[in-house]
Order: sequence, then C-alpha cells, then structure tokens
Amino acid sequence: MDAAAPEGLDPADWDGFRTLAHRVVDDLLDRLEHRRDEPVWQVLPDDVRGSFDGPLPREGIGAEAAYAEVLARVVPYSMGNDHARFWGWYMGAGTPVGNLADLVASVLNPNMGGGDHAPVLVEQQVVRWCAEAVGYPTDASGLLVSGASEANLIGLAVARSAVLGPTVRSDGLAGTGRVAVYASTEVHSCHRKSCELLGLGEAALRLVPVRDDYTLDVEALAAMVAADRAAGIRPLAVVATAGTINTGAVDDLDAVADLAEREGLWLHVDGAIGGFLGLSGRADLVRGMARADSLALDLHKWMQAPIDVGLVLVRDEAAHRATFSVVPAYLRHATRGLAAGDVWFNEYGIDLTRGFRALKVWMALLAHGADAHGAVMDRTTALAHRLAALVDAHPDLERLAPVGCDVVCLRYHPRDADSLDEQQLDAVNRELVLLVQESGVAIVTETALRGRLAVRVAIGNHRTRSEDIDLFVDTLERLGPRAVAAVTTDGD
Amino acid sequence: MDAAAPEGLDPADWDGFRTLAHRVVDDLLDRLEHRRDEPVWQVLPDDVRGSFDGPLPREGIGAEAAYAEVLARVVPYSMGNDHARFWGWYMGAGTPVGNLADLVASVLNPNMGGGDHAPVLVEQQVVRWCAEAVGYPTDASGLLVSGASEANLIGLAVARSAVLGPTVRSDGLAGTGRVAVYASTEVHSCHRKSCELLGLGEAALRLVPVRDDYTLDVEALAAMVAADRAAGIRPLAVVATAGTINTGAVDDLDAVADLAEREGLWLHVDGAIGGFLGLSGRADLVRGMARADSLALDLHKWMQAPIDVGLVLVRDEAAHRATFSVVPAYLRHATRGLAAGDVWFNEYGIDLTRGFRALKVWMALLAHGADAHGAVMDRTTALAHRLAALVDAHPDLERLAPVGCDVVCLRYHPRDADSLDEQQLDAVNRELVLLVQESGVAIVTETALRGRLAVRVAIGNHRTRSEDIDLFVDTLERLGPRAVAAVTTDGD
Repeated sequence: MDAAAPEGLDPADWDGFRTLAHRVVDDLLDRLEHRRDEPVWQVLPDDVRGSFDGPLPREGIGAEAAYAEVLARVVPYSMGNDHARFWGWYMGAGTPVGNLADLVASVLNPNMGGGDHAPVLVEQQVVRWCAEAVGYPTDASGLLVSGASEANLIGLAVARSAVLGPTVRSDGLAGTGRVAVYASTEVHSCHRKSCELLGLGEAALRLVPVRDDYTLDVEALAAMVAADRAAGIRPLAVVATAGTINTGAVDDLDAVADLAEREGLWLHVDGAIGGFLGLSGRADLVRGMARADSLALDLHKWMQAPIDVGLVLVRDEAAHRATFSVVPAYLRHATRGLAAGDVWFNEYGIDLTRGFRALKVWMALLAHGADAHGAVMDRTTALAHRLAALVDAHPDLERLAPVGCDVVCLRYHPRDADSLDEQQLDAVNRELVLLVQESGVAIVTETALRGRLAVRVAIGNHRTRSEDIDLFVDTLERLGPRAVAAVTTDGD
Repeated sequence: MDAAAPEGLDPADWDGFRTLAHRVVDDLLDRLEHRRDEPVWQVLPDDVRGSFDGPLPREGIGAEAAYAEVLARVVPYSMGNDHARFWGWYMGAGTPVGNLADLVASVLNPNMGGGDHAPVLVEQQVVRWCAEAVGYPTDASGLLVSGASEANLIGLAVARSAVLGPTVRSDGLAGTGRVAVYASTEVHSCHRKSCELLGLGEAALRLVPVRDDYTLDVEALAAMVAADRAAGIRPLAVVATAGTINTGAVDDLDAVADLAEREGLWLHVDGAIGGFLGLSGRADLVRGMARADSLALDLHKWMQAPIDVGLVLVRDEAAHRATFSVVPAYLRHATRGLAAGDVWFNEYGIDLTRGFRALKVWMALLAHGADAHGAVMDRTTALAHRLAALVDAHPDLERLAPVGCDVVCLRYHPRDADSLDEQQLDAVNRELVLLVQESGVAIVTETALRGRLAVRVAIGNHRTRSEDIDLFVDTLERLGPRAVAAVTTDGD
C-alpha cells in the first residue's frame, strides 16, 4: 500500500504494456485489412472447444500471455460478422473508426447514468443527430440502449404508462383489465418478449395478417381493434415495422399512423432494420415515422456501429421520464459539481450504470458524415437487387419474397427437381445453408416464409462488394446439388 | 462498387489509419500512466459545452479530425472515474487489460445472442468462473448483462415466472392477485424500477426496516410476511443485499435464506457491490449467497472491469430459460454450422443482439488471476478502514455509519460549531461535497442516513493508494471551513 508499489491492476511495467497494446492494434488492423481473404467462419476444433472448460484461474499469467490465448483460441473462431460476406440474421460489420472510439470509451470509462461531463453531452448530441437523421423531432427524448430489443421494450413501457396512467407504476397491473398491442405477424420476436416482461402477457400481442408484400394489413388491423373494443379489451398501442426481420418489408407507416390517430392508439415504430432509411435514396419509405409516439432504432445494424448500440426516441419527454424516473438520496442531482447536469439518462430507462456507447456513433458520424452512411444503405440495397436479379435469372434458384431494404429471400429449386416435394425442398435448403456456412464463403441463415424454408441473405454490411454477391451465387450453384444429394441420400 | 473502390466505411488509406490508431494508444496510455497528476474532474468551459449543439454532420471530416475533436472536447471533461481518487456513487476504475479486451471485442464484433463460436464459449466460461468465485453452483445458469440493474430485473422476472407459473407469460398479470417482494429500506432503487417494469407495481416492494448496522431486520421481515399472508397478499420473493449502496452493509444472508426457505420465498441476492467478497479475506460475510435462487453481480464495480458488465446467475436453468425463451423461425438453432451451439444467450434475457463484454472479464481473470482481484478488495477495504480511523480521530469529522465493504460515510462537524443545527450541517456537507468535486482532488458524493446528509466515500477503485486517503482528509480540513462560511453567509 505504499506509494512505490504498483497500482492494483495497472501494469507494473507500463512500457512493456505499451508494446503489447501496439501489437494488438497491428494484429487487429492486419485482420481487418485482409479479412476478406479468410473464411468468414470456421467450426472450432475439438481441442479448442474443450480448452474453455477449465476452472477459475487463481494466479494470473500476465497480459501478454492472456492476449496470446485470445489470439490462439478466440480470434480465429469468432462469429465472423466483421467479414465482407457475413449476411446472417441482420448485423452490421463494425467500422475501424467505431473500434477506435470503443477503445477511447473503455479507457475513459464514464458512467453514462448522468452527471455533468462531456460524454453526457456527446450522448445528447447523438440522440439529436439520430432524430434529425430519421426525420424525427430533434427535441424528442432519447436514450442509447443495447439494441432494438431494449429500445422496443422501453417504447412499449412508456406506452403502457402513458395510456394506463401512473397507477401502473404504483400499483401494477393486477387491477387492470385486458389490453391489446397490435403488430403484424412479421413483427420481431422481441415484441412478444416485451409484452411478457411488462406483465401484459403474450396474449396481449395481437398479430395482424400481412399483405402479399409482407406489410401489415391496415384494414385487418382496423377490424381487430374494433373487435377487441367490442369484447371489452383496451387497445393500447400499435407497432409498425420499418424493415421486417424476415424480408425487410416496410409497413405503410402513414396508413398505420392514420389509424392510430383515429383510434387513439400509441404508435410505436420498430425501425431496427430500416429506421435510418431517411439517410438513403429511399427516404420516402419511412416518412411516416415522424408521426410515431416512440421509435426504436439500431445503430449496430445498417449504421455499422460495433455491437452494441440502439436508440429509443420518445416524442413526449415527460411521458418517457415519468415511466422510469426514481431519484433516491444517493443519486440526488446538484446544481454544481459532477452531480449537476440537466439530463440524467438513468431516469429514462432500465440501467443506472451505462456505458459510453455514444462515442462510437458520434465519432463515426463526425468522421464519415451522415451521407456516407446513407450511401452504404444505397449500396447494399443495390447489391440486394443485384442478387435478386441473378436469382430471378437463374434456372435453379427461386426468389421467395420481394426485396425489402437489403434483404433477399431465396431458395435452391433445381429445374430438374420434379421429384422433390416441398418438404424435401425445405430440407435441401436447410442443408444448403449449412454447407454454405461450412464452406467459409459466406454466412447466410434460414427463415420460414409462408411455410417454405428460405435462404435469407441480409446484407447490411458496408464491406460487401459486387464480386461477393457473384461468388455467393456461384457457391449456391456449386453446393446446391450436394445439398440435394445429402437430402435424397438421407431419404433412401 | 468495383473491386478497386475503397470499402464502405473502411479507411481508404489503411497505413494512415494505422498511424492514427497507434497515436490513440499512446495518448490513452499516457493518460492512464499519469492520470493521478491531473484533476479528477473539471467543469466544462462554456465554449466547450456549447460546442455540442450543432446539427447532424452530412459530410465527414475524416477519422483523424474526428479524433482531434474527441481529444479536445471529450477526453479532458470526462467523468473522471479512471482516476485514483474517484470514489463517487460506486464504480470501478477500469483496467488496461480490460481496455485492450474491449478493443479486441469491438473489432471481432461477435453477436453474443448465440451460435457456435468461441466468444460464446468465453462467456460460458466467464459465467462458470464467476459462479466459482462467489461460491455459487458452477452449473447455474448465467448471463452477462449491462450491470446489476438489469441483473436484478432478470432475477426478479425469473422469480415472478417461477412462483406464479407460465400463465404470467401467456396471459400477463391482469388476473393475478397482489404479490409482495421484500427488501430492506436500504435496497437499491433499481428494485423499485424492476417491480414497476414487471407490472407488479411499486406497492409490491415491501421495505423492511434495518438494524443499527443498516442490515435487514429479519424478524421484522418475518412479521411483514405473516401480515401480508393474512391480508391475502402472496409473498413472492425476498431480496437480500450483499453490500448496500449507502453504507456497504451486507445483510445476514443465512438468516434471510433460512426465512426464505421456511416461507417458500424466492431468494434473490443483490451482490452489485459485495457479491465478489468471496474472493477476499471477508468471504465469511457472503457465504449464505450460495443459497440464493438468483444472484445479481457487477463486474464493473469492485471487480474493476470497464463499464458495462454485470452478471445474473440463476440456480435453476430451466426456470431461467422458461422466463425468456422465444425461438422464431429466423432464430432456429441448427445441429451444424454457425447456428449450432447448446446455449443461445438470447433465450435467457432481454437482448437478442448482445456485445462481447465477456472478453474483458475473461482476459482480466486470465491475466491477473482471481486472487489479485480479491487482493484489490482487501486493499480498498483496508483503505476504507484507514479513512474511518482518521475520521474517528479527527475533532472536526464525524463518522455516520459503520464501514461496510469499502464504503465510508462521514460528515464535517466542526468542534466549535455549536451554532450549527442539523439542517445547517446538512447544508455544510452538501456544499463540502461540491467544493471537493470542484477542487479536482477527489470525487465523493452525498447520501442521506437517518435524515442526516452524509459525505459518502465509496472507494471501489484499484488505483487508490494510502496517500490518496490522506490527501482527501487534508482536503476536508481545508475546505470544511469554506463550506461553513458559504452556508452561514448564505444564511445571513
């Protein structure tokens, strides 16, 4: 404990640590620069897999040796979504500027629960910038969160409080009658989780049919609202989606907003995928988003920020704060000092301690500008349409849905496959997804569309080039017959 | 879109970016190495504060210029909790190893929702390591989360489902009778937020009186449970705290566990502050934690991980999964490929997309070892007791609570201050906290203890040395009279 002793967990030898840190930077930049020459993903060898079974280390091995373990056992077997041909689920690839910002944020380590310091101003500015980017009022209340799941949860929580009133917070839902939240059958599963967590129950989530283009059928919605009212169920909110998870479909936001207005429903828009289309050439698709009462956005998807960062925007700041604010004595705000500050973010969401995820968004928007982010969207959208055109022109490939945002759903359907029934086609395409993944060429995933298994290509990746799309189609051609063989052999 | 064009948001000039990245590393390590010579915190000058008001930048200024903005406007005015004398609220300081891990995690950018890749194995191992560290069953279910707020929320959500049954998820709480969750009056405010968010309502949180040492009064708890049962209210869970936010008090976990067992209540332990005492010389304090049904821990507090990372552990894996799991077609698990893997973390919590916060914990435990983390706790505990002894020996300082963990609550109470009433003493100490903060010497914060305003010193910082404690006491001596003058002059 004397002054000369090394600090608790700081390096005893700063110069040695500095050398290590520079090596880490070089290794990581080497990786990023040449990543497209590596497989997107590879399965863990058994010995590596087994190496994570050991007990808690009591003695340390030092930073350098620990990093060697990361290099040997973690880096080569990561998920792969920093690669140009990762198109699974829906994720961005991250950016080098975002990575640097994450390092700065980690070292500064501010707690974004609140207080009077520059990182809080950064987050406030990021909230305003994002509102401006998506055409939402810039005086809206906003909070950066872990992603759209949390943003959607918070939006619905505010809706619950705003519609049902303050007794929800004080007395809970035990005395409340049944309520309903509407969303299309294509809505993301996180909304079901939100309804459950909030105590509304899955039954409160009313799934509205979609049209052929996978957008919410507004007439069906109107009928369901009327039927619920007649049955004594209180319509609470409607969730419209700007970019569905399966096909990237954008609901007719203006039509939904008209209905919400007419019916007095809270309008929440889930813009996890397409929320930032306002920066792109297809801003027309999301103009109605400005009418939402609350809005969930993801920055780590099409906006390419490193995971994790999402954003919830709420038009009515008072309603937002009234849903979450608790200020005990040990969190009292001051008029001077560090505990000053107008906005304490912990009053607007679940977390008290909050990371400085704002910095990666701030620095990326400063460095690249909003237009470059819009250009990424235009570029990956064009790539999706290129893929769709190749699929449409190919005798053995079949497209299963319209291209929404930059999502393409297709399947391998060989022209000479009269003998394959729908169930076998599903099995073939499930196998094909696995073969593509195992080939290391690309990561795509599966979904179900009207009962048929689809190979889902969700580009969302600023690193993808035209040549990557071509290579992917070649790979489908190459592996398709193998998938058929695997399934038909299995079936023998 | 041709192959020669620079990637979307990757640098056009990788070498230039590499130079920048190395400079960032040098700047940050310079900062960390010499941080104790700077003020802990300083107020933002008006021109800097005003500089965050501008609109969304459409054109980028490049990475280097963006970093210059970070250096000029963010770094000098951060919160300060990377400094050796930051003892506000309760936070760790972060560690250089954790910072490096955050950079690696940001570049790899894996989505920890699930899948078959090494980062998932890292998180699984971290969960087991932490369980082992705190003496909890290593086959417990666990999930890294943003912090204890979320960990406590998840613990209570599992309790709600486990006790009330699956209809909570399907049908919500509208048909449920009143329930009660018990915790001491010293419990963290996040538990109230959890009760509200889960639809139980604030009224469901029954605050049990504490004893003189600020630990939960178990006899009073027993009486409250009996009274609630008699009133037809269903006791659901009891929350015991291992390290309260105000004074670091550790509830008598075994006594609470005995009662929970007797009464059939879910036992949740909030170990945000003291949860890892099992690694320290005071492991005896938390032995009863092993009996909890669920347990919330923070890694970014006494364990010093960079913000954000907490952990929830649940004894019954099936109950944990049954609370959150939803697996739609687009998240279907596979038996091979990237979508294989036994555990999909998104089935155990709120988030689908999840960051790789596991790496900073894994790398720190590997590099330093668990014992070094325990030694940090012993060291800051000793520093807290040193401060307490200095306060007790000082004629103008008064201690307001027993030292719990490494938290000291005190006030300035000048020996010649017969003329100051309690209200004035509160005002003096509130002013003193501000003066200390503004001096740049240390960050401490205030709380209220039995109606008296306390200067709260929550060390929790691996960088703090004995000399820092001495400097702090000197500073209280120096600024105390100024605080008195400010208050008594105001009062004139």
